[in-house]
Amino acid sequence: MAYQKGMETKTKILKGSKKLFLTEGFTKSTFKKIGEYLNINSNLITYYFSNKKTLAKYVLIDFFDAERNLVDQYIKETYSPMLTYAIRNRIHYQILADNPNILNFYSEAVSAGLLHNIFNQIPYIKKMYSDFFAYYDVKKEYEDSYFIYLELGSEREILLHFKPEMYNDETFIRFITSIFPLLVGIPNTVVLEELKQSKLICSNLNLSQFTF
Amino acid sequence: MAYQKGMETKTKILKGSKKLFLTEGFTKSTFKKIGEYLNINSNLITYYFSNKKTLAKYVLIDFFDAERNLVDQYIKETYSPMLTYAIRNRIHYQILADNPNILNFYSEAVSAGLLHNIFNQIPYIKKMYSDFFAYYDVKKEYEDSYFIYLELGSEREILLHFKPEMYNDETFIRFITSIFPLLVGIPNTVVLEELKQSKLICSNLNLSQFTF
Repeated sequence: MAYQKGMETKTKILKGSKKLFLTEGFTKSTFKKIGEYLNINSNLITYYFSNKKTLAKYVLIDFFDAERNLVDQYIKETYSPMLTYAIRNRIHYQILADNPNILNFYSEAVSAGLLHNIFNQIPYIKKMYSDFFAYYDVKKEYEDSYFIYLELGSEREILLHFKPEMYNDETFIRFITSIFPLLVGIPNTVVLEELKQSKLICSNLNLSQFTF
Repeated sequence: MAYQKGMETKTKILKGSKKLFLTEGFTKSTFKKIGEYLNINSNLITYYFSNKKTLAKYVLIDFFDAERNLVDQYIKETYSPMLTYAIRNRIHYQILADNPNILNFYSEAVSAGLLHNIFNQIPYIKKMYSDFFAYYDVKKEYEDSYFIYLELGSEREILLHFKPEMYNDETFIRFITSIFPLLVGIPNTVVLEELKQSKLICSNLNLSQFTF
């Protein structure tokens, strides 16, 4: 009974925090504000989640789960890892372009380095990389972590320096989606062809209704 | 006379700040501490440099100037842009690996995003990129700024996540030095060959005496 009550409180805190992170941003949503919003003592939040970063990590994982479910609707089993990767990138940046509140929270979380702590542990992201190595005849010379730092590093700079209007610019998508494949030796012709395919598959994406 | 006095004070502040940034780190070196160290009123520092970021930018530019002078001793006019780039990367990371004080300051400055404000304006960095496009038969599809964000983004993640012992690891150097060239379409064989050359040219680098 006590256990169930605890679970309910945790869920309530998570839902409330997500709401505030998305409307007020990560930095501005203090435990005090979350407590006031939920009408609970903020010590209770500390008790269950220690600090705001932990809370934000749960919210980020929810985001990636929801994004993954969306991506899954656009891919087929027959698609190559490059095509899947390109579709995922288009959807990812389209979500950010179409949802200013998600973009704000996500940018703050990325800037705070929170993504690094979880990106490595998301099975679907890890699988995306290992599928590449299994499918294409590439020399897997570098650690997976190298690529993850590269991806997250590029993403951080993009979120810091590019306006959301850029995120569905074709040149931008081509650039960001070429980095990793070209580095592992997938031929440019393959990269470009799959990028073209992904454009057809993702034509007229409007993800302003996306929630998580 | 007043002008000359002002110049002298500015130089004195810059020298003192550099010293403190390198020994105490960027975050810990407040204007108050710099003032105490130089035995001047900290308001004078505010008067000349407004804020600490401005001061740090001058120090970073000094660093890049000194690094460039060092790089110049290792390159010849006949060297290809790829070879020059590889030599520069080896020297850059060797300086950071050999000088913990420089590494600390530089990492903090990069994390604070200071590099972005100046990297774009350093003629020698800009030339390195434009030389690539002029020398190799590459399609210059993307803005220079894209590459600069990519480079700085990767560097930021590396400084955050890799221990200095990694910086002269050959796999690491190959990875970091391949990103940009492969992305603009320079063949992998060329990249690897020039990396090999640069290794010979930079053999037994010991840059623990590097100062700026």
